[in-house]
Amino acid sequence: MAFALPPGSTIGILGGGQLGRMLALAAARLGLDVAILTPDEDSPASRVAKTTFVAPYDDPDALAALAKVSDVVTFEFENVPARVVEILAGLGAVVAPGAKALAVAQDRVDEKSFINSVGVSTVGFEGVNSAIECEVAVARIGVPALLKTRRDGYDGKGQRWIRDAKDAAAAFEALGAPCILEAPAPFVRELSVNGVRRRTRAPAAVSPETEEAAQDIAGCILEGLDYVGVLAVELFELENGDLLVNEIAPRVHNTGHWTQDGCLTDQFEQHIRAVAGWPLGPTTALARTEMTNLLGSEVDAWTLLAGEPGVCIHLYGKRHAAPGRKMGHVNRLTSL
Amino acid sequence: MAFALPPGSTIGILGGGQLGRMLALAAARLGLDVAILTPDEDSPASRVAKTTFVAPYDDPDALAALAKVSDVVTFEFENVPARVVEILAGLGAVVAPGAKALAVAQDRVDEKSFINSVGVSTVGFEGVNSAIECEVAVARIGVPALLKTRRDGYDGKGQRWIRDAKDAAAAFEALGAPCILEAPAPFVRELSVNGVRRRTRAPAAVSPETEEAAQDIAGCILEGLDYVGVLAVELFELENGDLLVNEIAPRVHNTGHWTQDGCLTDQFEQHIRAVAGWPLGPTTALARTEMTNLLGSEVDAWTLLAGEPGVCIHLYGKRHAAPGRKMGHVNRLTSL
Repeated sequence: MAFALPPGSTIGILGGGQLGRMLALAAARLGLDVAILTPDEDSPASRVAKTTFVAPYDDPDALAALAKVSDVVTFEFENVPARVVEILAGLGAVVAPGAKALAVAQDRVDEKSFINSVGVSTVGFEGVNSAIECEVAVARIGVPALLKTRRDGYDGKGQRWIRDAKDAAAAFEALGAPCILEAPAPFVRELSVNGVRRRTRAPAAVSPETEEAAQDIAGCILEGLDYVGVLAVELFELENGDLLVNEIAPRVHNTGHWTQDGCLTDQFEQHIRAVAGWPLGPTTALARTEMTNLLGSEVDAWTLLAGEPGVCIHLYGKRHAAPGRKMGHVNRLTSL
Repeated sequence: MAFALPPGSTIGILGGGQLGRMLALAAARLGLDVAILTPDEDSPASRVAKTTFVAPYDDPDALAALAKVSDVVTFEFENVPARVVEILAGLGAVVAPGAKALAVAQDRVDEKSFINSVGVSTVGFEGVNSAIECEVAVARIGVPALLKTRRDGYDGKGQRWIRDAKDAAAAFEALGAPCILEAPAPFVRELSVNGVRRRTRAPAAVSPETEEAAQDIAGCILEGLDYVGVLAVELFELENGDLLVNEIAPRVHNTGHWTQDGCLTDQFEQHIRAVAGWPLGPTTALARTEMTNLLGSEVDAWTLLAGEPGVCIHLYGKRHAAPGRKMGHVNRLTSL
C-alpha cells in the first residue's frame, strides 16, 4: 500500500474469535469498518463487525466476497491454509501480514530454520519424517528431547517428551505425522516480545541488556519476514542470560493483551494501524500491568472481578464456557 | 434490576450516533451484546452492534422488537420522546436512566426548577409563553438576558440575547415557541462534572473546595433523580468561586470523552456497567488529558493526528464531513 487507508475503509479479518473481536473494536476507534470471515454462525467478532461472511475459510465464494469489500485482509490466527492466501492474492486482495510469515509460522522446522537464518538462536532441532529418522535424531540430540508435530498443535497438544532413546520410534508412531525433535531449553523463565514492523516493547522486569537483546531479536525476525503488522516472539531466558526463540506468532497475541489498559496504543490498534498503512501509535506504558486469562468457569467470577479496584475486565462474548476455553481476561494495573 | 446482567445479555440503545457507537464498544469489552434502534440506514453505532432496527424512534413495531431482545434499554441522546419511554415501559422493558431524568432534561424550565428544588443554584430564570410574558420577565430580570426555547435547541441554536427591554416581544416572536428567560451568568469559566450514580470525578484544574462543591452538586442531582447511569452537569464558575448549574445531560457526554484514554474506566463503560447493574469500575486517572473535537473537515488531518506523540484518535465512522459536524476527537495525554 502506497497510502494509508482512509477512515471508512474496510479491514477484512479471517477468524471470528476473541482476537478478531478485539481487532474489530480497535478498527472502530479508528473509524474503519470490519468484515469477518468465520465458519461460526454466532462468533464473538461478528457481533461487533459491520459485515460477516459465514463459511469455511477456504470457501471460494466467501473469499471473493471478502476480497470485494475489504481494502486489506488480515487474520487472527496463523493456521490459515496457504491456498487461502493464494486465492485472496489471485483476487487482487492485499493480505497483511503476507504469505511468508504465515508459511514460516505454520511449520515448526521452517520456523526454527528461518529464525536461525536471521542469526537468532533456538534450541537444537531436527526434522523427522519416520520412526527411524526419529531414532537417529534422538541419538544425535540426546535425551530428554521433545518431539512435536511440525504443523498444528498448541498448548502442549501434539507433543511428547522422549526420556529414553528406546522410546523414540514409539513416540513418533504415536504422533503419526511429520515431526520436529527439539533439545530441551534449560530456561529460567519465558518472555515475550510483541513487535510491530520495526518497533518492539517489553513490559517484563528484565535488565536493560536483556530488553535490548529481545528487541534486537524481534527486529531481525520482522526484517527477515519483511513483516507488516503485530508479531509476537516467545523467548526462553537461560540462566546465563542468553535468549532462545521458542516460537513466533504472526498476529496479535495473548501475551500482548496487557497493552489494552497499560499502554497508550494497544496491540490491536497497532496491528490495524500497521495493516492499514497508518503511522504507528505511541506505545508509552501508563501503568504496570498483570494480565490473567479467564479460562472456562473462571469467568463466572465476573461480578467480583468487575468490582476489584485497579482491574479492567475484558470478556469475549463466548456463549459456552468449556473447560480451559479462553473466555476473557483481566488486566490488573498498578502505577509505574 | 435486582441482579447484574450476566455477560451475553443485550443492551438496547436508542440512537445510532457516535455516543451509541462508543457505548457499544464498551459493552463489547464487557461481553455484552448491543441492539441499536436508529432511523439511519448506515449509522456509526450499527456497524459495531450485533443487531440494528432501522425505524423512527417512536415506531411501535421497532420498539417492540427492541424491547424483546434487550435486557435493558438506554439512550445516547436526551430528546427521546416521552411516549417512547412509555411504550417501552408498557412492553415491560427496563429503561435506564428513567423517565424522570428524560423529562427534566428536555425542558429548560423544568430542568432549572428541578435543580433549584434539590438545593443547587442556577442563574435566575422565568418561563415565558407569550410576548407579553416576555416583556414582564425582562422587566423583572433586567437586561441583558438570554431568551431560549424551553425544548430542543443546542449549541446556541434557538436562543437570542435581549439587550434592550423594548426588543423583548420581538425576540419572543422570532423564536415562536414557549421559552425560558435567563439572567446572564457572570462566569469566569465553564466546568463539567460527569457523575455516575453517586460517584463523580472532575479532571479540571480546580481547587479542592471547588471540586468538592461540584461533586456535591452532582450528587444532589443524581439523588434527586434517583438516577442510574452517567449524567453530565455543566457548571459556571463565578469570580467569587460560586458554582451555578447551566444544564444537565442524562447521558454520556462530549466533555467525558477524555476518560477513554485518561482513566482506568471510561464514561461509556461506566454507563454500561451502571445500566447493567454491574459494580462501577475504578475511575483512577492515568494521565492528564486534553480532548479536542474534530469538527467537519478538521478530521482530514487524521494522518497527522494519528502520528502525533501522546495522541489517541477516535473516529466515528461518519460518511460525510458537513461543516461543524462532530467527526471524531483526539485525546492528548501527558503524565500526571
